[in-house]
Amino acid sequence: MAAPQIPKAFAFDIFGTVVDWRTSIARESASFLTTIGRSDIEPTAFTDAWRFRYIAMMTAYNESGRPFVTLDVLHREMLDATLQAFDIDPASLDEVLLKDWNRAWHRLDSWPDSVEGLSRLKAQFPVVALSNGNIALIMAMAKRAGLPWDAILGAEFSRAYKPDPSAYLATAEALDIAPEELCLVAAHHSDLAAARACGLKTAFIYRPLEYGGACAPDAKAAQAWEWSANGLTELATTFGC
Amino acid sequence: MAAPQIPKAFAFDIFGTVVDWRTSIARESASFLTTIGRSDIEPTAFTDAWRFRYIAMMTAYNESGRPFVTLDVLHREMLDATLQAFDIDPASLDEVLLKDWNRAWHRLDSWPDSVEGLSRLKAQFPVVALSNGNIALIMAMAKRAGLPWDAILGAEFSRAYKPDPSAYLATAEALDIAPEELCLVAAHHSDLAAARACGLKTAFIYRPLEYGGACAPDAKAAQAWEWSANGLTELATTFGC
Repeated sequence: MAAPQIPKAFAFDIFGTVVDWRTSIARESASFLTTIGRSDIEPTAFTDAWRFRYIAMMTAYNESGRPFVTLDVLHREMLDATLQAFDIDPASLDEVLLKDWNRAWHRLDSWPDSVEGLSRLKAQFPVVALSNGNIALIMAMAKRAGLPWDAILGAEFSRAYKPDPSAYLATAEALDIAPEELCLVAAHHSDLAAARACGLKTAFIYRPLEYGGACAPDAKAAQAWEWSANGLTELATTFGC
Repeated sequence: MAAPQIPKAFAFDIFGTVVDWRTSIARESASFLTTIGRSDIEPTAFTDAWRFRYIAMMTAYNESGRPFVTLDVLHREMLDATLQAFDIDPASLDEVLLKDWNRAWHRLDSWPDSVEGLSRLKAQFPVVALSNGNIALIMAMAKRAGLPWDAILGAEFSRAYKPDPSAYLATAEALDIAPEELCLVAAHHSDLAAARACGLKTAFIYRPLEYGGACAPDAKAAQAWEWSANGLTELATTFGC
């Protein structure tokens, strides 16, 4: 098989691929759970419950017919639902605390290789965010963690959530390149499969610790992707950056 | 009068405010005019003719009812019209040359203070592009000139051209701040006036060389803006950056 053509630009999934959502949300949730007197709840269990609501919602969002709202809004709805699942009434809690808890998603730590890998790739290619996170969220995260995006595209720009094809195709269109000239970089097979169905190139990033060592929920969706790497510095090396 | 409240973010006009479109387009047009055997045409006259079509078009765009197309598309239409105004039939020219000429807008040089001023402001505030330029254009320009945007918003994101209120209001909304918490930075009184009408704060940048020393076409729209500065390093100093 001929080697795949080098992409003209790279678009990155963020949660899990560039940043370690689980460690960050668990650390912040531990603190908030203590504040509300529920330190008996295991923070990673709370975190996983919150995140799995997200995964379920995204798959169904585009079929639901619901008009576009930002991920900040959805994260808050899912926080309230997660609290209720742990027998906590969100209406009994301080609104300022809830808002701050929800904004923990703006303060995720990057994986150790992300800033260096992105910076090296950025010197030779456009590197853009193609996340379901809204612009304010991705921008706040980038400023805190030093992630050097050339542009923040994705759900809020396209008004569609991955895996809806519009999210991928609108990104290529905004970059004024063909879908096959754009490479999605993601730690998730399901995301890559949806991108490939739109004609994008695909690069898989192996993040064995995303779920704390547990198997990823989309492990069965694995395919042979054009590229794969153990982190973003290795990806940069693959492309001679 | 009380001092105005410090903005939470800065949004920048680009053409004329951050980059010197006239010198760059004239330099490239001189070369293209020579290539097509029309070095008799004065490059700055050609440049001004091209740019003034833009100014006229933007004012009327939103009332025209025309669906959104990117500025790359509009620049090309205006290039063709400008050539015709100089008695050159664009259909007689090489399409690759015309595309490259049109992309001169992706290769504008920044004013000498822009990179330092933006970088200093970026250390303390979000700095975003709020231009009528499309994302591919503003991104290519930023990568070439080293302009460190946190996000590229503006016309293509809002699907509306300044001075349409949607362009300003969609930017504040994407940043999750109120209009009065956002400051437009621009060298053009007309742009600032439209932003102020939407509730934004305003900072005027004095660029006496934008029109080669000639009076700006919107000089009569001058008002007392919240801030004004001779360039972006001075603006950064104003905000303690």
